[in-house]
Amino acid sequence: MTGTLVLLRHGNSEWNAKNLFTGWVDVDLDAKGEDEARRGGELLKEHGVLPDVVHTSVLRRAIRTSEIALHIADRHWIPVKRHWRLNERHYGALQGKDKKQTLETYGEEQFMLWRRSYDVPPPPIEVGSEFDQFNDPRYAALPPEARPSAECLKDVLVRALPYWYDEIVPDLRADKTVLVVAHGNSLRAFVKHLDQISDEAISKLNIPTGIPLRYDLDDDLRPITRGGLYLDPGAAKEAAAAVANQGR
Amino acid sequence: MTGTLVLLRHGNSEWNAKNLFTGWVDVDLDAKGEDEARRGGELLKEHGVLPDVVHTSVLRRAIRTSEIALHIADRHWIPVKRHWRLNERHYGALQGKDKKQTLETYGEEQFMLWRRSYDVPPPPIEVGSEFDQFNDPRYAALPPEARPSAECLKDVLVRALPYWYDEIVPDLRADKTVLVVAHGNSLRAFVKHLDQISDEAISKLNIPTGIPLRYDLDDDLRPITRGGLYLDPGAAKEAAAAVANQGR
Repeated sequence: MTGTLVLLRHGNSEWNAKNLFTGWVDVDLDAKGEDEARRGGELLKEHGVLPDVVHTSVLRRAIRTSEIALHIADRHWIPVKRHWRLNERHYGALQGKDKKQTLETYGEEQFMLWRRSYDVPPPPIEVGSEFDQFNDPRYAALPPEARPSAECLKDVLVRALPYWYDEIVPDLRADKTVLVVAHGNSLRAFVKHLDQISDEAISKLNIPTGIPLRYDLDDDLRPITRGGLYLDPGAAKEAAAAVANQGR
Repeated sequence: MTGTLVLLRHGNSEWNAKNLFTGWVDVDLDAKGEDEARRGGELLKEHGVLPDVVHTSVLRRAIRTSEIALHIADRHWIPVKRHWRLNERHYGALQGKDKKQTLETYGEEQFMLWRRSYDVPPPPIEVGSEFDQFNDPRYAALPPEARPSAECLKDVLVRALPYWYDEIVPDLRADKTVLVVAHGNSLRAFVKHLDQISDEAISKLNIPTGIPLRYDLDDDLRPITRGGLYLDPGAAKEAAAAVANQGR
């Protein structure tokens, strides 16, 4: 036995509600998203799953979700680590675009390829376009070749795994309860890795927002229960189905 | 020249409003305190004082102040460090007591000695009393002899300085803008140290809530301008006067 991993996907954002591709654009939670974060914190507290440390992306919607949930769970005082390697997938030139309109313009096949294929990234974002992050100070220390301009899920996995091994695993090895508050695709990358899901099967996997997903891991950091355990399994099932229909 | 230090005292809490001694009791900000935190964030943003890293205590009112201010200043993504050495002074047996009632019971002299003397701590809190923190998990790793049961300002200085040298100074030496969000007495301890204020004179110094206090430091980590520079000097002057009248 080693520590306990808890994955939490941020709640609804202002751009989820508008049905826009978000990626690295730093939009805030909306009121529904704040409620989801609160519910996430209540579930942690009710189930006595009390994080010893939290890891978040550098995006506001994940950071605020962690802050709200941890205040509710009375764990606001735990150590915090943030890193761009936990960010949402970079959606390239699609960032800021309407999902429905993109579906209509490019057709179902291309749309689903961009959204769900494992290894086909969207077109890269251009420097100086409205929704790029090339001048964002939080990425200023990264040399150009390390800064994504569009990512597929495989790219996310490749850039997230070093953080998993270097920052999260040591906390788990120290027998901590480790909360990771991040995004649909960075969390799918970790779940793919943990549950050894195939490149094909991962496209069907949706992680619901605001419902903590608990993994107990063995000495090889393999899940004792494949797929982990949602702290509210009924709500997770309903929510996952709803996510699958996004953009329709 | 080295980095820039910015001190920020948390805003009004639920117990400030009730006029109770708080110390290590983990009360939340009230609505006024949230407004003060927002104003603190706006001042950082307006003046282009953009923290590269934030240090907070492990108490909710400082943590929430930092979260609110940093979201407003668009610096929510910076690295965070929290430590009990930045906590408010432990108020011992006075924690949870009404300030006005304490003044009436013990008289002006004893009251002011406990509130303002440099080296007279209040009576120690008893294990198992209503407002102790002996079972608080955030201090569980501390052995008993390292856990305060009452502190005077001198005690705060002694326990806060190791954090200053070990965690804050290295950030300043790395030429960072370092935000410290903490409490009336832990910040007074740092100001006493930086400005080399005498044990007598420090009793008159009040730090206003919610107004960032900027110190530019020379190579010996001494202030270039003694007393630092408040980002809103007019409001700071008014607020300091009001703090001095607390408990009356």
